Amino acid sequence: MEKETGRLEAFSDGVFAIAMTLLALELKVPHLGPDGPRRASETLAAGLAAQWPGYFAFVTSFFTVLIMWVHHHIIFRLVRRADARLLFTNGLLLMLVTAVPFPTAVLAEYLTSEAAPAACAFYCGVFVLIAVAFYLLLMAAFRRQLLDPGAPEAQVRRLRRNYRYGPPLYLAAAVAAPFSPWVAMGICTALWIFWAAMTRNCEAEADD
Amino acid sequence: MEKETGRLEAFSDGVFAIAMTLLALELKVPHLGPDGPRRASETLAAGLAAQWPGYFAFVTSFFTVLIMWVHHHIIFRLVRRADARLLFTNGLLLMLVTAVPFPTAVLAEYLTSEAAPAACAFYCGVFVLIAVAFYLLLMAAFRRQLLDPGAPEAQVRRLRRNYRYGPPLYLAAAVAAPFSPWVAMGICTALWIFWAAMTRNCEAEADD
Amino acid sequence: MEKETGRLEAFSDGVFAIAMTLLALELKVPHLGPDGPRRASETLAAGLAAQWPGYFAFVTSFFTVLIMWVHHHIIFRLVRRADARLLFTNGLLLMLVTAVPFPTAVLAEYLTSEAAPAACAFYCGVFVLIAVAFYLLLMAAFRRQLLDPGAPEAQVRRLRRNYRYGPPLYLAAAVAAPFSPWVAMGICTALWIFWAAMTRNCEAEADD
Amino acid sequence: MEKETGRLEAFSDGVFAIAMTLLALELKVPHLGPDGPRRASETLAAGLAAQWPGYFAFVTSFFTVLIMWVHHHIIFRLVRRADARLLFTNGLLLMLVTAVPFPTAVLAEYLTSEAAPAACAFYCGVFVLIAVAFYLLLMAAFRRQLLDPGAPEAQVRRLRRNYRYGPPLYLAAAVAAPFSPWVAMGICTALWIFWAAMTRNCEAEADD
Repeated sequence: MEKETGRLEAFSDGVFAIAMTLLALELKVPHLGPDGPRRASETLAAGLAAQWPGYFAFVTSFFTVLIMWVHHHIIFRLVRRADARLLFTNGLLLMLVTAVPFPTAVLAEYLTSEAAPAACAFYCGVFVLIAVAFYLLLMAAFRRQLLDPGAPEAQVRRLRRNYRYGPPLYLAAAVAAPFSPWVAMGICTALWIFWAAMTRNCEAEADD
Repeated sequence: MEKETGRLEAFSDGVFAIAMTLLALELKVPHLGPDGPRRASETLAAGLAAQWPGYFAFVTSFFTVLIMWVHHHIIFRLVRRADARLLFTNGLLLMLVTAVPFPTAVLAEYLTSEAAPAACAFYCGVFVLIAVAFYLLLMAAFRRQLLDPGAPEAQVRRLRRNYRYGPPLYLAAAVAAPFSPWVAMGICTALWIFWAAMTRNCEAEADD
Repeated sequence: MEKETGRLEAFSDGVFAIAMTLLALELKVPHLGPDGPRRASETLAAGLAAQWPGYFAFVTSFFTVLIMWVHHHIIFRLVRRADARLLFTNGLLLMLVTAVPFPTAVLAEYLTSEAAPAACAFYCGVFVLIAVAFYLLLMAAFRRQLLDPGAPEAQVRRLRRNYRYGPPLYLAAAVAAPFSPWVAMGICTALWIFWAAMTRNCEAEADD
Repeated sequence: MEKETGRLEAFSDGVFAIAMTLLALELKVPHLGPDGPRRASETLAAGLAAQWPGYFAFVTSFFTVLIMWVHHHIIFRLVRRADARLLFTNGLLLMLVTAVPFPTAVLAEYLTSEAAPAACAFYCGVFVLIAVAFYLLLMAAFRRQLLDPGAPEAQVRRLRRNYRYGPPLYLAAAVAAPFSPWVAMGICTALWIFWAAMTRNCEAEADD
């Protein structure tokens, strides 16, 4: 019984790779006003520096999608077969992944403005959907008929447990956003650190 | 005699993955008018909500292309070799796949307007072409010299029969569109449910 | 001695797939003027029909890049190893492939205008470069140390001979363009039919 | 112990391929002014010629990313396993790769203007980051637990030594840029020739 999920993984990787690469399209060359030949260099430097929210959104989105890709990788390493349910839950997750740059751009544009509560609530709301999609994918992938028989029991159990925390915690952040955007962002950041740290643990376990 | 269609499948997957990812480029950050510091949050929330036709077009196009990818997968699982005819019919299908966002965007923009009959007819017309391309691909793929000798006879026969329904049904929808856009959309939706359901059956058969 | 060009082929396929998919970004939803609720459907239909040069450029570019991909495939089927020279000549070809939409768009916009001679000369000029790049790639790939020992001698000889015709014929088309755009386009079309037909022959030979 | 980095390499290749292909989106069809039917061909030819900085930026960026891809290839040929540290340093490099078109476009737009010092300093500054990311990737990849046991000692040592030169030399170029943009560009060009030449040597060594 060979691994049958190769084409599904390659396809998913393609979507992740393109979603990450398209982020760079948002970086635009600043155009100098009619400032005369003097101080042109200072004007360009200031123009490049003024785009910092764009750089921030680019870096944040890139690492967000990268961590999702690593988790996708972790899940599929334990799966041996694909069926229709796995294909469609994976499709739902990929759809949300390709949309990540959109809430990130909304957040970057409005985080320091009066509209921050709505921007944060929207951002957290999209991540509630993503956390639900990841949980559905895990449910679809970790059924007896799809799981690799050699998948370590402890790791499967731990992933199941940890992915369950995602939806309620992001929901809490979304509910908190209209009252305190910074508490909402704090929860989101803490969760990213948590998902990134999980990567390391999964790997350590895989080595046992 | 090993499977020779690997590079063709990987290439097709690339086209499918990119076509799906590019859809997200249509989602744009709403720009707030000079509304003053008050109510900025409500204005942003309203701006995000007002883009619902864009979200609808995004989700519809994404799942449309996803179901096509799954069907492409189903066909190629039964094929062992590629020849020039398969390459060019596959190319025709891929060309139409990359174009799907265009009729979908036309539909999303005009479905609730007076121009709905023309928009629906155009949308259904493109799907007539896609149904024809899928049928040509099936004809090219399911010849004795390309088919995997181990492909289950019953599944091949059933796919051949079901794909034959596509072109006339989409043509009926396209002809109905100028008179009743909603009948046309109803036929298209019913067909998507039919193609998605077929995925499940093919898989069940493959397991027999 | 296993095949070492897998990653190079996959990478090239990615570039081909993306170049083909990006073409569809040029298709734009027509925006209706303030024509009132009456005749909106006719206006939309006319707007969609008026974009025919865009559809023509899309289809032409797509099949142009598709035939190039098939030829790339034919060449690499005979190669077993990659070295720096093959990597860089392949890179040169890929760069020109990604640029194909640009001369095609110039041609589609100006073919029926007074600027047709310059547009055709530019288009043919880019294909002179592509024909040279394909010839350089063939020279790099078909050296004794890279060729698959099992590559059929007759096919290698025939590819070498046929690719030599490309540069001078496209150069003739480029030189003819300022005097007669239609002769130039006729040469280019004839050459595409020739390259597409070669696909079939190579395959027949591979089966011998 | 089989090679486990396949999915990581395929994913990275996807990002490289897309970053290279998106560069061509910057090439735009020139639009002719109301010049009358006479001289339209000369006007179009002049318009195409006037875009030379765009062509220059396209070619430069393409080969820049191509050489990076080749080096990525060289490093991963020697690696057998992936862990979290390799995944994240590789992610950092990929993020900077997708951003390369941005400083290149800034450079192409301002190299011949009064703002050249700022443009060159920005360009060189991004390459300081890329050189650091490549060095971090090498450090992560060339640890005993990840290296292929069969990797040639001499090549590993030479790569380690050569990659150490990158950050200080690009930093020197960035520091020199405000005083003499041309010295800065000279250092960068010399380094590209050096990295391209390394490709050839690595390959020669791999054959020993």
